[in-house]
Amino acid sequence: MTIDYTSRKDALISNLKEQAVDAALITDPSNIYYMTGFFADPHERYMSLFIDVESKETHLFLPALDKDAAEVADADHIIPISDEEDPFALIKATIKSDVKTMGIETNVVTVAHHNGLKSVFPEARFTDIQEALNLQRTFKSREDVDGMKEAVRIIETVLKEGLKTIKAGMTEAQLVAQFEYLMKVHGAAGPSFSTMVLAGEKAALPHGTPGDRTLENGDFLLIDFGVITHDRYCSDITRTFIIGEATDKQNDIYNIVKAATEAGVDAVKAGVPLKEFDIAARSVIESHGYGEYFNNRVGHGLGIEVHEAPSIHHLNEDVAKPGMLFTIEPGIYIPGYGGVRIEEEVYINEAGEAEVLTTFPTELQTIKI
Amino acid sequence: MTIDYTSRKDALISNLKEQAVDAALITDPSNIYYMTGFFADPHERYMSLFIDVESKETHLFLPALDKDAAEVADADHIIPISDEEDPFALIKATIKSDVKTMGIETNVVTVAHHNGLKSVFPEARFTDIQEALNLQRTFKSREDVDGMKEAVRIIETVLKEGLKTIKAGMTEAQLVAQFEYLMKVHGAAGPSFSTMVLAGEKAALPHGTPGDRTLENGDFLLIDFGVITHDRYCSDITRTFIIGEATDKQNDIYNIVKAATEAGVDAVKAGVPLKEFDIAARSVIESHGYGEYFNNRVGHGLGIEVHEAPSIHHLNEDVAKPGMLFTIEPGIYIPGYGGVRIEEEVYINEAGEAEVLTTFPTELQTIKI
Repeated sequence: MTIDYTSRKDALISNLKEQAVDAALITDPSNIYYMTGFFADPHERYMSLFIDVESKETHLFLPALDKDAAEVADADHIIPISDEEDPFALIKATIKSDVKTMGIETNVVTVAHHNGLKSVFPEARFTDIQEALNLQRTFKSREDVDGMKEAVRIIETVLKEGLKTIKAGMTEAQLVAQFEYLMKVHGAAGPSFSTMVLAGEKAALPHGTPGDRTLENGDFLLIDFGVITHDRYCSDITRTFIIGEATDKQNDIYNIVKAATEAGVDAVKAGVPLKEFDIAARSVIESHGYGEYFNNRVGHGLGIEVHEAPSIHHLNEDVAKPGMLFTIEPGIYIPGYGGVRIEEEVYINEAGEAEVLTTFPTELQTIKI
Repeated sequence: MTIDYTSRKDALISNLKEQAVDAALITDPSNIYYMTGFFADPHERYMSLFIDVESKETHLFLPALDKDAAEVADADHIIPISDEEDPFALIKATIKSDVKTMGIETNVVTVAHHNGLKSVFPEARFTDIQEALNLQRTFKSREDVDGMKEAVRIIETVLKEGLKTIKAGMTEAQLVAQFEYLMKVHGAAGPSFSTMVLAGEKAALPHGTPGDRTLENGDFLLIDFGVITHDRYCSDITRTFIIGEATDKQNDIYNIVKAATEAGVDAVKAGVPLKEFDIAARSVIESHGYGEYFNNRVGHGLGIEVHEAPSIHHLNEDVAKPGMLFTIEPGIYIPGYGGVRIEEEVYINEAGEAEVLTTFPTELQTIKI
């Protein structure tokens, strides 16, 4: 993995310059990772990356206990903050206080930290740079895609191996434990979100929680999960299976969702509004009379976080561009009966064409217990 | 588990009344759980609990997709917010806007949300209620302690069973995967924090990350982990083992830390400054000449989060009181050589005496591989 962090910072700096922003103070750990290659969750402690637009000088303020790990950080100065120190006094002692316009992530910076910053930069007007950061992270390089593919490779291995462990009497929660064990065995840092294993009527819950329900013959088995790698790339895939024999109705519903996913993926290309991908998938489900059972957006971007821009929904007029990477995941969820979702990851490549990163077959597979 | 959420809200309300605060808007999911018995992580969506001090009426605003799960919430009104809605417009349409003093958690509320609230409550002065909430959560009831004991019971079972799986060639990361698998098998919701398994010289890192290092004869093996139960009680325990035969130096260091932990625990009682517990443990380590190798506070409170008040450090003059529950976890960390930490959980009971919740033996155990 050879990410060019300098280019990333330069791109942000030139964006900030256009907006007449003098400096950025980045607080979101994922944004700091994106700009420096160093990740830490500071928990209740303070961490931020200060970027001076004029000089391009960068200061990374971080908890003293993360200092050694931060040696990898692409930053000019690493400033450890011990537990006894006031981070804002330290920022004041380190950075010139004449910033006029300071960019912050207003969705991340807390009121308490904002008060601290106001005391350090009394002249500053604070402006939101979340959009600029989101937009920049939306566009993935070929190196990023390689990292994303590795995350897909691991989760698909976990899926294949985990399915073999299913047996009569197993609960949703036990299968989750098995999958998350295999994630670590196969080299993931961990799950990229709470692993979802939902059986039977529970598969109708788009955000259900796995529990003590045992896997039974005749069940839909919906598995939606992903890993985060040590390079912090996230995967996200859903496959739905049948335990035992599928009924005609189960087969029908499955094949409609499969066709919807394919239609969504086939619609993906640069130059058209993002909403088209949602509408393409949704139309298939609606044309078969199941429209009322699909109430979610069809997909979301992902990268170093499992939810990033863009949002793929039927009202999003933003135009699809090369570099975007997102899920296509239509579903049919019938309360009390069950549900099916099939989720692929798609990248719009340099030529403006769709590359599907997920490779696990989408044909209906049945599982014997 | 029969927690009296009404009493919890009443205690907060009477505290707010004394401070002339008209209303509280609670945003931290753990604080919302503490007051209502309902937990959700809203991710990028909006969730808050509004408490009117005069009428005691409560409104829980939450993502529409969590509405069904919120049926358990102890709140007068559940207000779902769909993805298309502006949460602040909804708050404005629901709550009278004449709040004069509004309590918020300034360490949690973001600048963007604060701006939203200012538009809804233009007359309001905002004040921090974090301290009031922290203080209230510091004092655990007997029901809470029962929940905490269950979290300890699970992690100690996981420790016992996980140790049996250790074999030659196993890496730190593989043992982590094994432990986290067993947590779920034994009924935990998950780890309460990143499971730490550190071998050999890596055991000298108080915040090290488990990796590909294999477990070898002669290693210290430091295991620091815990679970969060479905009732959201957290445990946190550390034990250090020796793989193979202990050297005299390893034995010495281990026994000094063991004596330090015992001294810290023995010092625990109501009515004395919290710093005394740190000093009691630290003095043992210092008297054996290892003072420079113990640079952390000796412990921290825990409950529905794994880090809560009080902080047990050598400068904390706050007086210990019945209901407090915290760790005592001194250690010796020698860079390049290795380290030992032994961590117990202690509760100050109704009589002002220490009850040790952890039961796993602290005598040095060696592990054959």
